[in-house]
Amino acid sequence: MKRPPKAPSVTVSDVAREAKVSKATAARVLGGYGTVSEAIRAAVLEAAKALDYRPNELARSMTTGRSGSIGVVVGDIENPFFSLAVRGISDVARLSGINVILANSGEDVEAEKSAIRVLLAKQVDGLIVTPAQSGDIGHLAEIACPLALLDRALPELDVDTVTVDDRDAALRATRMLTRAGHRRIAYVTAAVLSGEFRGAASKINTSTVRERILGFLDACRDAAIEGAERNIHFGSGRSESAHAVMQRLLRSDNRPTAILASDSVVALDLFKAIRECGLNIPRDISLITFHDADWTSVTTPPITVIDQPVYALGKSVAELLIRRLKGDDRPPERIVLPTTIIERMSVGPSSAT
Amino acid sequence: MKRPPKAPSVTVSDVAREAKVSKATAARVLGGYGTVSEAIRAAVLEAAKALDYRPNELARSMTTGRSGSIGVVVGDIENPFFSLAVRGISDVARLSGINVILANSGEDVEAEKSAIRVLLAKQVDGLIVTPAQSGDIGHLAEIACPLALLDRALPELDVDTVTVDDRDAALRATRMLTRAGHRRIAYVTAAVLSGEFRGAASKINTSTVRERILGFLDACRDAAIEGAERNIHFGSGRSESAHAVMQRLLRSDNRPTAILASDSVVALDLFKAIRECGLNIPRDISLITFHDADWTSVTTPPITVIDQPVYALGKSVAELLIRRLKGDDRPPERIVLPTTIIERMSVGPSSAT
Repeated sequence: MKRPPKAPSVTVSDVAREAKVSKATAARVLGGYGTVSEAIRAAVLEAAKALDYRPNELARSMTTGRSGSIGVVVGDIENPFFSLAVRGISDVARLSGINVILANSGEDVEAEKSAIRVLLAKQVDGLIVTPAQSGDIGHLAEIACPLALLDRALPELDVDTVTVDDRDAALRATRMLTRAGHRRIAYVTAAVLSGEFRGAASKINTSTVRERILGFLDACRDAAIEGAERNIHFGSGRSESAHAVMQRLLRSDNRPTAILASDSVVALDLFKAIRECGLNIPRDISLITFHDADWTSVTTPPITVIDQPVYALGKSVAELLIRRLKGDDRPPERIVLPTTIIERMSVGPSSAT
Repeated sequence: MKRPPKAPSVTVSDVAREAKVSKATAARVLGGYGTVSEAIRAAVLEAAKALDYRPNELARSMTTGRSGSIGVVVGDIENPFFSLAVRGISDVARLSGINVILANSGEDVEAEKSAIRVLLAKQVDGLIVTPAQSGDIGHLAEIACPLALLDRALPELDVDTVTVDDRDAALRATRMLTRAGHRRIAYVTAAVLSGEFRGAASKINTSTVRERILGFLDACRDAAIEGAERNIHFGSGRSESAHAVMQRLLRSDNRPTAILASDSVVALDLFKAIRECGLNIPRDISLITFHDADWTSVTTPPITVIDQPVYALGKSVAELLIRRLKGDDRPPERIVLPTTIIERMSVGPSSAT
């Protein structure tokens, strides 16, 4: 015996029309994600009931992912670079009715593994990660859900990736310093190196750190500055010992006449250390930093910065990931966003005698 | 027929002893949370197998919670206040082998509800929330897992809460301004008010905002300043319109001679607007802000701040929550941490004529 033919399925569009709301709003209510007012929620649910709407689970998972959430693992949530990128991610996710849950690796690859394990156990639909190390990525290669990389590329991992032109940016900033006559230029980064550097960039496990150092060395080579790799200072993160190292660098006979800082957290520490040493920017020492953090424009003098499109970085990577969640199966994209240098007042001629 | 008596249970301590690691490390491996090296993980699992260790699920959930994770919902992850508090929370959680997953409400109560819904669906063991509004808390009252409040108290919600002495801090800071002769003192906050203020503090839905305004008004009353409630400026968050309002305030004939800013994000915008208007701190205008953000010490002049123990705030609330997860059933605690004022160079005598 044949069953009577089923009535054509009621769709989200039908419910939306009945409830006099947009399709996106109806989808949000029926999918149980995103935020709408109680009145609208009630209207949509009433319309759905009147039409005998039955959600199509498969279609729903194709559109919004299983749970409507993505996980984001950043290197250091206290660094304004990452919190701004997260705003870019969140703004895009919100438009798709997707929730963002965040975890912080503290730039520790073991903490990153743990965070990813937890987020996967909690069934996020996709992950955005800024890998703490490019030498230890087995846990990333094993991820079964869509994965996108933020700010740091991994050559071996062919997934959607959005970075900025780190090498070129470092080259241009360093060239600005060499053209002002500087020869003793230091590059200062919070990144920690296991073992000695000796100019072997391949030992550097984080792509942004490596690319920037390569750009710095490119510019030094162009200016025929020898031994520039000895002027790269690792491990200048938040710690007493890092501060002591900065002080020693600034008080040495051979102190640099210019510094390029790898991020605004390092640069602020340098700014304070320079002042504590009684040195004047730019008379005694020039300073450029990556990231146009908000404080860089209010100091005396204001600081010349490499302006990275941080918000766009977050926005783009979220767009790529959400496209995957919707079932897009084009080959992975690797987007490199351009940076600009904002010239302020912290670069002067070399004070070297 | 009696079954043979069971052998006494093998405990985590037994496994730890066998594997020659600490009990905490063994618990971490056996519980599947926290981070240990692969070698140690293998040693612990081998020991567990050799001893035929069977996890006691109840004991495990009493010690670490079901999944070993807590959810944190903050108002604005881009505000350094919250990112520092999150570091305090994360540091404590890590010591207990508990993962922290974060969500951002953007100070929007609907986004807060959505975030809490998602985190609960993902079975976090406990929640730490900075409620966006104290007028809409039904969703918080319904939470079945342990809940603790960070930075903002809710009188109606009897749960573990850690705040700072906001009212007293605002009173002391404002008094510092009145004692310097200021009478036209503005209080500027990013908080948005629905409807007109007219001095009715009960209309203010966020406890920190309300308490600070009450402290500000207390000090104005003590100094017999009339109409101080008209000098409270809401809605000065990140937006073009907010910036325009600041400019208008600073260019008006009756411009304030001193300003108390509710947080460091507002204060930085004010600092820039003051400079754009060609005004000098402290000659033309004095400025004090809540939160000793890192930039406040590097401006010219450096800014006098209310130093809140932000890291300790995060640390304490995490300790209270984790105590609950371990089964503590003492009545909820309400901890109020003290603040101090760091005097720098941004307060001078009144310039009013």
